[in-house]
Amino acid sequence: MSKRKRKAERRKKSTRHTVGAVPGTLSAPPDALPTRVRVIAYDAQELVEGEGVEAIAELHGRRVIWVDVVGLQSTDVIRAIGERFDLHPLALEDVVNPHQRPKIEEYPSAIYVVKRVARAEGGELDLEQVSMFLGDGFVLTFQEREGDAYEPVRARLREARGRIRRLDAAYLSYALLDAAVDAMFPLLDVYDRRLEALEEQVFEDAQPAIAEEVHAIDRDLRRVRRAVLPMREALGRLIRDDTERLDAEVRIYLRDCQDHLAQMVDLLDAQRELSSAISAGYQSALSQRTNDRMNLLTIMSTIFIPLGFLSGLYGMNFDPGASPYNMPELSTRYGYPALLTVMVVLALGMLAFFRRRGWL
Amino acid sequence: MSKRKRKAERRKKSTRHTVGAVPGTLSAPPDALPTRVRVIAYDAQELVEGEGVEAIAELHGRRVIWVDVVGLQSTDVIRAIGERFDLHPLALEDVVNPHQRPKIEEYPSAIYVVKRVARAEGGELDLEQVSMFLGDGFVLTFQEREGDAYEPVRARLREARGRIRRLDAAYLSYALLDAAVDAMFPLLDVYDRRLEALEEQVFEDAQPAIAEEVHAIDRDLRRVRRAVLPMREALGRLIRDDTERLDAEVRIYLRDCQDHLAQMVDLLDAQRELSSAISAGYQSALSQRTNDRMNLLTIMSTIFIPLGFLSGLYGMNFDPGASPYNMPELSTRYGYPALLTVMVVLALGMLAFFRRRGWL
Amino acid sequence: MSKRKRKAERRKKSTRHTVGAVPGTLSAPPDALPTRVRVIAYDAQELVEGEGVEAIAELHGRRVIWVDVVGLQSTDVIRAIGERFDLHPLALEDVVNPHQRPKIEEYPSAIYVVKRVARAEGGELDLEQVSMFLGDGFVLTFQEREGDAYEPVRARLREARGRIRRLDAAYLSYALLDAAVDAMFPLLDVYDRRLEALEEQVFEDAQPAIAEEVHAIDRDLRRVRRAVLPMREALGRLIRDDTERLDAEVRIYLRDCQDHLAQMVDLLDAQRELSSAISAGYQSALSQRTNDRMNLLTIMSTIFIPLGFLSGLYGMNFDPGASPYNMPELSTRYGYPALLTVMVVLALGMLAFFRRRGWL
Amino acid sequence: MSKRKRKAERRKKSTRHTVGAVPGTLSAPPDALPTRVRVIAYDAQELVEGEGVEAIAELHGRRVIWVDVVGLQSTDVIRAIGERFDLHPLALEDVVNPHQRPKIEEYPSAIYVVKRVARAEGGELDLEQVSMFLGDGFVLTFQEREGDAYEPVRARLREARGRIRRLDAAYLSYALLDAAVDAMFPLLDVYDRRLEALEEQVFEDAQPAIAEEVHAIDRDLRRVRRAVLPMREALGRLIRDDTERLDAEVRIYLRDCQDHLAQMVDLLDAQRELSSAISAGYQSALSQRTNDRMNLLTIMSTIFIPLGFLSGLYGMNFDPGASPYNMPELSTRYGYPALLTVMVVLALGMLAFFRRRGWL
Amino acid sequence: MSKRKRKAERRKKSTRHTVGAVPGTLSAPPDALPTRVRVIAYDAQELVEGEGVEAIAELHGRRVIWVDVVGLQSTDVIRAIGERFDLHPLALEDVVNPHQRPKIEEYPSAIYVVKRVARAEGGELDLEQVSMFLGDGFVLTFQEREGDAYEPVRARLREARGRIRRLDAAYLSYALLDAAVDAMFPLLDVYDRRLEALEEQVFEDAQPAIAEEVHAIDRDLRRVRRAVLPMREALGRLIRDDTERLDAEVRIYLRDCQDHLAQMVDLLDAQRELSSAISAGYQSALSQRTNDRMNLLTIMSTIFIPLGFLSGLYGMNFDPGASPYNMPELSTRYGYPALLTVMVVLALGMLAFFRRRGWL
Repeated sequence: MSKRKRKAERRKKSTRHTVGAVPGTLSAPPDALPTRVRVIAYDAQELVEGEGVEAIAELHGRRVIWVDVVGLQSTDVIRAIGERFDLHPLALEDVVNPHQRPKIEEYPSAIYVVKRVARAEGGELDLEQVSMFLGDGFVLTFQEREGDAYEPVRARLREARGRIRRLDAAYLSYALLDAAVDAMFPLLDVYDRRLEALEEQVFEDAQPAIAEEVHAIDRDLRRVRRAVLPMREALGRLIRDDTERLDAEVRIYLRDCQDHLAQMVDLLDAQRELSSAISAGYQSALSQRTNDRMNLLTIMSTIFIPLGFLSGLYGMNFDPGASPYNMPELSTRYGYPALLTVMVVLALGMLAFFRRRGWL
Repeated sequence: MSKRKRKAERRKKSTRHTVGAVPGTLSAPPDALPTRVRVIAYDAQELVEGEGVEAIAELHGRRVIWVDVVGLQSTDVIRAIGERFDLHPLALEDVVNPHQRPKIEEYPSAIYVVKRVARAEGGELDLEQVSMFLGDGFVLTFQEREGDAYEPVRARLREARGRIRRLDAAYLSYALLDAAVDAMFPLLDVYDRRLEALEEQVFEDAQPAIAEEVHAIDRDLRRVRRAVLPMREALGRLIRDDTERLDAEVRIYLRDCQDHLAQMVDLLDAQRELSSAISAGYQSALSQRTNDRMNLLTIMSTIFIPLGFLSGLYGMNFDPGASPYNMPELSTRYGYPALLTVMVVLALGMLAFFRRRGWL
Repeated sequence: MSKRKRKAERRKKSTRHTVGAVPGTLSAPPDALPTRVRVIAYDAQELVEGEGVEAIAELHGRRVIWVDVVGLQSTDVIRAIGERFDLHPLALEDVVNPHQRPKIEEYPSAIYVVKRVARAEGGELDLEQVSMFLGDGFVLTFQEREGDAYEPVRARLREARGRIRRLDAAYLSYALLDAAVDAMFPLLDVYDRRLEALEEQVFEDAQPAIAEEVHAIDRDLRRVRRAVLPMREALGRLIRDDTERLDAEVRIYLRDCQDHLAQMVDLLDAQRELSSAISAGYQSALSQRTNDRMNLLTIMSTIFIPLGFLSGLYGMNFDPGASPYNMPELSTRYGYPALLTVMVVLALGMLAFFRRRGWL
Repeated sequence: MSKRKRKAERRKKSTRHTVGAVPGTLSAPPDALPTRVRVIAYDAQELVEGEGVEAIAELHGRRVIWVDVVGLQSTDVIRAIGERFDLHPLALEDVVNPHQRPKIEEYPSAIYVVKRVARAEGGELDLEQVSMFLGDGFVLTFQEREGDAYEPVRARLREARGRIRRLDAAYLSYALLDAAVDAMFPLLDVYDRRLEALEEQVFEDAQPAIAEEVHAIDRDLRRVRRAVLPMREALGRLIRDDTERLDAEVRIYLRDCQDHLAQMVDLLDAQRELSSAISAGYQSALSQRTNDRMNLLTIMSTIFIPLGFLSGLYGMNFDPGASPYNMPELSTRYGYPALLTVMVVLALGMLAFFRRRGWL
Repeated sequence: MSKRKRKAERRKKSTRHTVGAVPGTLSAPPDALPTRVRVIAYDAQELVEGEGVEAIAELHGRRVIWVDVVGLQSTDVIRAIGERFDLHPLALEDVVNPHQRPKIEEYPSAIYVVKRVARAEGGELDLEQVSMFLGDGFVLTFQEREGDAYEPVRARLREARGRIRRLDAAYLSYALLDAAVDAMFPLLDVYDRRLEALEEQVFEDAQPAIAEEVHAIDRDLRRVRRAVLPMREALGRLIRDDTERLDAEVRIYLRDCQDHLAQMVDLLDAQRELSSAISAGYQSALSQRTNDRMNLLTIMSTIFIPLGFLSGLYGMNFDPGASPYNMPELSTRYGYPALLTVMVVLALGMLAFFRRRGWL
């Protein structure tokens, strides 16, 4: 995506609040994709899959039902799901407003989770908003676009790998959360590699492009950090709070997930510190470079300016014939060799001076 | 508004405390506009509107009454309203003193909210102080100037859109608060766009005007942040506190409003980080630019200074006739071509030296 | 006051602890002024004033007595007052030691408040220490020098303006505290104006004097901040604590006073941010300025150095008569016009090069 | 190890999460060494040692058993140990995933500790992950590689030195933790010495290598700090928490260990402050150096440029024969001495000017 | 002390942990001085002094006994004292390990205090570790070297000045603590004066030595701060905690002592801010200085380079006899005056240009 396009994209997204709208109003974001609903209901023995709003009606009531909504265009579908599962209108409004701060909120009927999933698309960082509701026997997920973060969980469900089929909706919500978190690590590894390349480069050959590259990386890292940090805090609060939706075992798993978020924040902090150290190194290299040139220029000028003056002096055309005081040196026997000697001595003296002061 | 005017405006505003006044004294700010009082009283069935202090007396006692005071010139009107609704004199003093820090305070008869509403007027950021009282069945709002932040709420009331008419004064105060908060997002989007333009510019063509522009934006952002941050904290405290004026449902709505404030603070922080990154980028570009010139100057000087010296040397007028030691080179057969060759070799040697050190 | 004097003053003040003294020892500070005691006793009906220690003995026992001690020279008087009102020796020691950190401490017999009052005297910031005791029916204030911060309160007492005469000692102490706090705002407005002047100047004409002026302002602001910040915290703690000396109404007033302190801290922070932004702007202007000169120097040098070399080359005195290889150009028909053409082309080429790179 | 290798190493390690794996899956890290199991069981009277999983089965049940696992290649062995001691699968997964954040977690059957042990190998900082479980009568330790941090504890156990044999598993776990912490101090002393050498160097002879060296040290210090800081906090939480696995006496010992960690953080902070002070000093020295050269260049140029111009002027070839206005000075009697005098006066004037402005 | 010595000293001290030692082992620090034990026992009526371990045995049991141990060489003596007063082995180990972080720890038999006392010895800051135990009726102090901080307390005890003889061991421990804290203020005053001298200097004549001096002061201030800050926090915790060793009165005194520490931290922060402001001022002065030179160089070069080129041009030796196109100007009647006029006009034009841009 070109810079121009990117800027346009950002501008479009930045119409973030429909000023004056009634709180709880559902309006699809301007660039919303068509809505697709996938339903999975399961217990330890059986797993049934379906598509569309009708599938929800059919499968609701089984031990665990997971409704995965991709694309936020159809507010009717979203409203229907909201009504079926008794979701709070404010939470539902947040689902379709793609500018939420990551957070976890408890509503009477469900725990509502908004997180951001980082994705690098064509070199451009994209932080998609993903919502999740955890209620009695149901987990609802809402994504702006088709992602593959949830694919491994779906596979584990189908193949009944691990303990996921034997456990309840809370565990499923943990598994989805954890999958989304873990899916971000490869992205951070990319930044790691770019920063390490820049770090090596900065002390070898500090090019102006480094400043721009570090600026761009730093901007991305700040954005990811702003997406991860509130999530870590919200999850920590959820674990400490005594909500009855989560039993001790799920809390242990969520603690593990929070730990991954803490690791990610650590990693991001380390990367930001590295990026600012690279910036500092670049500035330092630049100063050093200016200093090197200055040094050479000063030495060359200081040596040759007096020599040049002397040669200029004896290039003057005062007429020796007009007066005996007019540049009599020009007609002496050893004038030229003497001047050359003076020049060499001057030059050597300067060099000695520079060497003694450590400039050479 | 010109710079000079702006400065004068600020100076006028800065007479912020009437030193030595009795606490609780009401004195209109020097630039106060005429006072206009608009009253709306409503319940689920009916909505009555009126104007002036008399309308308050008439409509007070209905389920919910909203008194909107615009312009703070008439302290008599304000004092009368204060007495009718039993407002604390200190709170009333704060209403007419336009230098309050955003805050939420509980008084026995009402919750008092002071917030600031950002407005860009003629390119100049204006942070108007807006006060609100929430008491039993009444909401009072005081604004310095006519703004349109409350217009949507008024419309919703009149058209009975959403749930606003069915709910109590606390919900109205939430709706007004939320409207004022949301009205600030478009302003921040303006800063977003200006910063992005500067960001692109700084790595392409770093002009001195960038430093001044970033300085101005940063100053505005700091002012908005100082207006938003205390509000977010005050609202958080209000939600956590166990005041009986707010039921669980309104708390959920206020939590949403606080969330918007948190989003705004996030956005402001992101913008300030970006603005300081642009500043750093500008400094870096400036250093790079100085370095570029230095590089060229050094290369040119280092190459030509010795060549110039040589040509100056052979421009001297030592008299070859006076002595065989006086510049005999000038009369040799290949003197000139030999010197030219020496010069070319010198210049090429320098170029090779610079290329090897990466200066070219 | 000259710089030299100022420095001497500071040095004198810096003998801050009599090392090894018995805790609770009273010794007057070296530059103490003669002690003057003014007493006001009042209730709603009556107000009596007196002077000197004897007046205390006479008036002690009335509803509220306010003893205002100015000048700390006479430790006997201070000790006598301490004994009469049963003040703790450590608190009394702090009264005469002018290096206290602002604080509020509860002793069994009284609440002890140490604050600092900023005053600008001859352009020099002076942070005088002011002590206050609030006990049962008495308020004691100790000042190093005669100030006029308390004058308005005295006037309100005499004229029985506001509610001050009807309320108890706690309200008086609030009034005095508030008067002292409000008296500092005009000083801060002075800094505001100076900073705004500097801000305009820095982007128009960055003079070295700006750096020194900003440094001086910043130093003063840091000092004021250190005086205000602990006071705000101490007052916050006092309001939250459940001391029985303060009833709910006085707490509301103290909360207002704390709010003013918070406003002041906000203002100071804004000013310090502005002052550091001005510093950064100055640095940036300086870099820009160096860059401008460098640019001109490089352009001039780069254009003229090769031209100068060429003219120097043809100023050499190789003898065309001695050899046909010695500068035959000098005798060609179009030698001079050709060289001039080469020079013009060179210069235009350089100019084109600089324009293309945006250096012109 | 070369830079290239180091980078490759880092890249390999950075495959940190098997995206989509079932939580609790055991998979050995890519560079795992063969697993070796050493068992020590003891009470006050007797100490028995063994090797391999069988030894665990044999010795489990004694008063205290310490299983030390070095090398994480054999997930079978690790799983077997996990089952025998009833370890939580998530904790066990963390053992073999070498990217954990230092932490202390309580599981029903054991306290799980992950820490990092710093080691300098070939000049390269290595932060190896070390896990420990403390349960009823057992301590399990897992290391990536053979280290000698635990050797002193083993020796104390064998020789029954100190109180270690008389006390329970909790004390053993403290002893191992403390040994690992103390083993890091010598490494920090190395940084101390390197920084002090750089500090002396920076004000004497600021070489560009200093910037790179400080950058490298700072990077290492940041990494160590990130390893130590969470450990200090986790240990503090453990001491405050009321887990029944730790009696008052062991808590005193753990407090001592936490104190060592706090000391280490203090030391690291001091070192980082020093390293940034050295960086600042280097920048300052660089600016000073550029300034020195600039000064010399300016003085030389300012003095000689006008002199050179004058000598160039009288080197012009205007034909005195063609017109009496053409450089008549050249034929005057005292033309040359007069010019020389003018030049000397000019030069002395410049020198006086520079001296007066303090540039010389 | 020379720099070299100082460095050696630091290195010796930095062998800070005997890696692998049994916790609670006593080993004297490498540079320990011979141990001297002074005992004072007293009550309101009587005071007895003695020397050596025997004196302890003799005087233990009186109302208050103070054992002052100077020099940590004899671990036997220290161990004997530890056994007599039932001190915890970990605390005793800390006494002889001179790298403790300032702290206050409660052990069953005593409160253990480690603080650092700053001393300037030969211009070199020395932060000696001082330990104190406060138990039932006893205070033990351990110092590395003879200091005179405790002398005033000893004198007050002997002369029964103040209330010290009438009060218990807790008050004695406060008196000793307070004496040690107050003894540090004169040292800080020295830094105050040095910083003020530098501050004046930096805006008048910014010498490179300033950077080094500020660096040295800043390093010392950081070290003192690290010694004072944990002490302030530990003391605050002690005052808040409900240990029964301290009655309400002693708590008031300790609060005063904590206040002094807070003052010291304020002072240190002010000094560090000032030192960094001086650094910034130095950098600014350096930039300004470079800019000044650059300005002069650019003006001189820009004016004289074209003039020099013109004079060089007419110094060329094109042969007017060979062609009418070869420098016919040289033979015109007004050639020379015309050129001089051109030069003067050029120079004046440049000067006008520079003046208009504000460079002159």
